[in-house]
Formats: sequence, C-alpha cells, structure tokens
Amino acid sequence: MTEAPEVSKTSSTPEITTEEIFASHVGGKLEVSLTSALASQRDLSIAYTPGVAQVSRAIATDETLADRYTWTKRLVAVVSDGSAVLGLGNIGARASLPVMEGKSALFKKFAGLDSIPLVLDTQDVDEIVETIVRVRPSFGAVNLEDISAPRCFEIEQRLIEALDCPVMHDDQHGTAIVTLAALKNAARQQGRPLTSLKVVISGAGAAGVACTNILLAAGVSDVIVLDSKGIVSQARADLTPVKTDLAARTNPRAMSGGSAEALTGADVFIGVSAGTMPEALISSMAPQSIVFAMSNPDPEVHPEIARKYAAIVATGRSDFPNQINNVLAFPGVFKGALDAGARMITEEMKLAAADAIADVVADELTPDRIVPSPLDPRVAPAVAMAVTQVARA
Amino acid sequence: MTEAPEVSKTSSTPEITTEEIFASHVGGKLEVSLTSALASQRDLSIAYTPGVAQVSRAIATDETLADRYTWTKRLVAVVSDGSAVLGLGNIGARASLPVMEGKSALFKKFAGLDSIPLVLDTQDVDEIVETIVRVRPSFGAVNLEDISAPRCFEIEQRLIEALDCPVMHDDQHGTAIVTLAALKNAARQQGRPLTSLKVVISGAGAAGVACTNILLAAGVSDVIVLDSKGIVSQARADLTPVKTDLAARTNPRAMSGGSAEALTGADVFIGVSAGTMPEALISSMAPQSIVFAMSNPDPEVHPEIARKYAAIVATGRSDFPNQINNVLAFPGVFKGALDAGARMITEEMKLAAADAIADVVADELTPDRIVPSPLDPRVAPAVAMAVTQVARA
Repeated sequence: MTEAPEVSKTSSTPEITTEEIFASHVGGKLEVSLTSALASQRDLSIAYTPGVAQVSRAIATDETLADRYTWTKRLVAVVSDGSAVLGLGNIGARASLPVMEGKSALFKKFAGLDSIPLVLDTQDVDEIVETIVRVRPSFGAVNLEDISAPRCFEIEQRLIEALDCPVMHDDQHGTAIVTLAALKNAARQQGRPLTSLKVVISGAGAAGVACTNILLAAGVSDVIVLDSKGIVSQARADLTPVKTDLAARTNPRAMSGGSAEALTGADVFIGVSAGTMPEALISSMAPQSIVFAMSNPDPEVHPEIARKYAAIVATGRSDFPNQINNVLAFPGVFKGALDAGARMITEEMKLAAADAIADVVADELTPDRIVPSPLDPRVAPAVAMAVTQVARA
Repeated sequence: MTEAPEVSKTSSTPEITTEEIFASHVGGKLEVSLTSALASQRDLSIAYTPGVAQVSRAIATDETLADRYTWTKRLVAVVSDGSAVLGLGNIGARASLPVMEGKSALFKKFAGLDSIPLVLDTQDVDEIVETIVRVRPSFGAVNLEDISAPRCFEIEQRLIEALDCPVMHDDQHGTAIVTLAALKNAARQQGRPLTSLKVVISGAGAAGVACTNILLAAGVSDVIVLDSKGIVSQARADLTPVKTDLAARTNPRAMSGGSAEALTGADVFIGVSAGTMPEALISSMAPQSIVFAMSNPDPEVHPEIARKYAAIVATGRSDFPNQINNVLAFPGVFKGALDAGARMITEEMKLAAADAIADVVADELTPDRIVPSPLDPRVAPAVAMAVTQVARA
C-alpha cells in the first residue's frame, strides 16, 4: 500500500529503483517445474525406474521419438559467451547470466517455449562451436545471444552447418526482422513503396549486417552502410572480410565519405551503433524521412530532436513511441521453427516473420504506431504461424 | 472413471501399462517457469533491458554475486553421455534423456532444487571434461549420471579438480551412501557393530567401487570384492588400475577363488552387478546374514529365496521391503552442499548423509524396515542439514 522510497534511478526508466531491480533478481528469474506430480510410488515407477526404461529403449531404437517423449522439442538453449552483453561489452559469461535468464523468461512468457541459459567460459570460436555441438541432444534449438562481431557471424554459420536444428543469433536476425517490420509499416503509413527508399544503416556489427541483408532480401536496393570510418565502399582498402562482402552488395551509387555524404537526401536512417548522429545531419535527410535510432539506452539522436525533422521516429526504448524490440520476433520465430520441425531458420522464414509482425498493426497505423507493443499477445502466435507455414511449404 | 485397458506390462510393476508410461512421457517431464510475472512494460524493464544491465554490471565487478542474483546457486546439471543407462547399457545421449529428466524431476520434488539434463554427444573422456568445464558458469553443481566404468572414475575425478563446485557421480556415491545407511541400520537392528561385519561386494563397477570405499571409510575392515573373474586380490595379474587399487585396500584375509569362497561364512552380501547368485551360496553365509541384492530389475537372488536364509534382505525394487534407492541420498546431498556453498562433496559429507538417512528410521527398525521409504519427506531435509553442517565445520 505504501510505495518503496526511491533511492536511485536507472537512466531510462525513471520510476524503477536500483533496489527494486536487485530485489527482483534475488534467486534468479527461472525455475524448473514438473509437468506432473510425483506423489506416489506408482508415479515414481512411471517417471523414473523401472518405467522410464521403456521410453529410453524406444528412443534408442528411433531417435526421432525424443521429440515426442522429452522436453527438447520445445526447449531453446540461450547461448552466450558474454562478449557483447547489451551495451556493457565483454563482461563475461557469469555476468551475462541475468540477461540470458531474462531472455529465457521472455521465451516462456510470449511463446510458451522452455529455455535454459547456457553461458560459456570460453570466447574461442572453435571451442564454442565444439561445445554446442556436443550438448546438442539436450535441446531443440539454439538462440545465440550477445556474442561480439565478427565472431558471431562465423559461430552462427558453423553451428547452422553442424546442427540439425534451428540456430539463430538474435542480435542479428531478431533486430533485423523487427526493423524490417517497422520499415514496411512506415512506408505503408506514408503510402510509398518500401523498395524505393534510400536507406542508411549506421553500424556494421551484428545488427547492422543482418539489417542490411534482410532489407536487400526484401527488395530494398539503395542501402548505404556506415562504420566508424565512414561509408563502407569498394573504394576502401581497410575492410574486413565481412565488410568487403557488404561493400559488394550495397552502396549502389558508389558513394564515398562519411555520415554527412550518406545522410544528405536519404529517406531512412537506421542506427544500430553506439554512436551519435548530429541534428544537422538528420535535418539534411529527404522530406518525410524515417529515423530508427535504436542504440540503447542512448539513441544515436534523441527522438524529440529527430521528430523535428523526421515524419516517423522509432527507438529501442520503451518510453518513446515505436519501440523496435526483438521480443516481437524471437519467441514466435523459434516457436514456428520448432512446431514445424524445421532444421534451420531460413531467410524466407525471417521475411515471413517481419510481414506477420507488421500485419498485426496494419489497420492501426499512425506515425507513432508502426510496430505492435512488445506486450501485444497477438504477435508471437502470428509470427509462429507465418514461420511454420513457410517452413512447411 | 474407467480404467485404461492393460495391453502389456513392465516386468517389475505389474499394475503399470506400457501405454500409461508412454502417455505420461509425452512432451517430457520438465518445464521452465518464471519466478515472477512479466505482466507489464515495467516488469519487462526490470527483468530485461534496461534494468537487468545493473545486475550484470554488478556481477561483472564481483562474480560471487551470481550466486545471489541468478538461479545457478540452486541449479544442478544432470550430465550423462548415455553410456551406461539403467540396465540398458550404452544407448546414447538422446535415449538417456527421459532418465535424466526423471532425475531432474526428483531433484525438484525432494529437495526443491532446479535441475537441467545436459546430455552429451560424445563419450570421449577428455571431451566430456572439457565440455562441462566450458559450460560451468551456467549452473551450481554437477550430478554425473549413467556413465560407464571405468571412464566414470576419471571423469568425476578430473571434474572435481577442475571445477569450484560440487560434482558427484550418483551411480557411485548415491548408491554407496544409501547402502551404508541400510547396512548401519541392519547392524543396529541386529545389535552388532557395523565394523565387525564380513562383507562381500559383487561388482567392481561404479557402484561396487564406491560401496567399497564408503564401507572402508565407515570402519568396515573385512571387505571382499568380486568381479566377473572372482575375488579381486593382489594375487591376480589381470586387474585394471582401478581394481589393483581395490585389491590393495580390501580382501584382508588374502582370499582367492570365486563367489563360493567369498560367500562362505560371510555376514553381508552386497550385489551391485548384473549377475546372479545361486541359492546354495546364499545358504553358505553366516547365521543372521544380510543380503542386499540390488541389481535392477532382476536382483542377483530373488528376495523370497534370500529370505529363506538371510535375516535381512534388501533390493533396489519398490515391490519388496527395504528398497535401496538413490533418491534417499542425492537430493539432500546436493541441497546441503549448495546451501553451504561447498566447493566439493567430501567423504565426510557422504558419511554424514548416510547417518542422516539411517537415523530417520532408527526408532522404527525391523528386518523389513532398515531404510526410509523413497517418498519419506523427512529424508532430504535431514540429509541436507547433515551435509551442510559437515561442510561448514
């Protein structure tokens, strides 16, 4: 009945105290429950010896029966090495655990999937891949989380090749799916075709690369990527292999220079870096511009500044309109892939997920409502169904 | 209201049908639950971004805070490579999963501990050790399960050395703890000292070695171990390193020969092999003999046959008196070790656990009641408290 005294505050959620956050984390956020009671000797004889031997023997004869008689078919391993946790950087496996528990909680809350955090005391690519391959029979899918670029690209690719189950690095593809959904609805709200938009993506890390790939796959042709040195272009000699690949597929007008050259006249700015974007450059964009300033907790440009020039503004934050939040994507994507028994999460499944998210609010579009709320219960089932349909087709 | 038709039966639980067993396993036996609701945007901001960042930052500064702010402090990994599952042998990781889920369910039911099955797609000792070391930050303790001997000895020893948390191979030590508890109460019921008993242990695998070790640690001096070739003795040239070690510490009367030589005049027979023991040999034991025929589902000697000669008979089965069931030990042992923040499970903790189990029924002893029922709710708390006390001393 009385409110707890506010002692200190987090930067972006002023009503929540540090004390409240720590208190709510005591003992962690997850627990394991039994799906049926073990009340009697008879229950024990069914769930454990001797009864369970029959189930084990059946799976030994036909491994696919593990899908039916164990929890793995709805179990996602949330895997991290703690190398790129939120905006905190390389804080290690143990410190990443509260984030991974939170992620597991979201899987349960939004898609009814069970999920366990698996955090790794190694940041060696070979060892990470090897370890996950060895524990593979324990779960049904792998959500990679908060692994730094460019290691995340190789780890994801090698696990997709090595494992016969869905693998997705959410920082890449969850972000990309929701960004595409938001951009589709932004274009729809403005009555112009998505494919005509001139897009600038600031950041060539995990999210930047995945956003680029999904926009290209969705038919957007004019994409320019910025890294800390400027426009990623084939003219540059300092590119990593990942950026060389990006340069070959983006920047169709062969621009060179920095943020100023890229943003002048652009229709869309997508910020997935930890950088900042000066007001003057936002003001140089084309009329009716669209700004997604998604860096957390500090957007590349404050949304109220951006709104002075842009027609539609989105961020990663919950205290401004249009929150681009991965939770709109990953629970439904994994649910759909697991329901369909898919061996991998394809580009088509990601595009279908973006469409499904966008469609949930298609009839309610305003400049301040281009994506559903993260708590909208319609989203995950719609995404799951869309992904399942593509997987089965 | 109507009973399902019985189509087929399991060997040792005649009332349970195969259909019932499989039906109760559909979807597995475990699920992950949230410890608090994620009902509002505010809840999300506490459990996930941005609030969770504060907790992660705190753990990055002081790793021991993971005990307080994650679920790891009460989380046991149930680890198996599927190489020696129940009596089914080397059926592999996936087929072992229903057993491991059952084990996790027992941890929850009896000790309130959370537990996740981690089954490994490798049976290489180095790879198993390496894998568990790498996923170590994900949990607070390791229960090794159904790993074949002699690999299980090396894997357990190397993990105990490598990890700063409790590690126990339950097939060894769970069995040994409950066996010692039962034997203490058998001797108590008969009014003779435990240490005076002449004991024969049939089986030099995981359980046999551990039973030998705990009996020696409890002060029993006359222990003879039988393997498939007869008495394990220093006179033999065919011994593995593990058995050479056993030979050096057992068989004080330097006996040689087989079961007949070992059992004649013995006070106690402990069967932890998959073999059989002829009625004639049981009849050759000393008066007031004690027979623990623990092979499952088929005891080395049928308890009704054994009872013709022995004063006290125990088995591993629930349908005869005196069930020697590991569930009397492992939930409380791990609970006690985790509660105390113990870095390992010591021999003293195991002895204390055996005492605690025995003491629960010390005032109710009869030849047919030397151990508590596996469902006795007094056991796990008593064991946990005893183990915690030793760990803290």
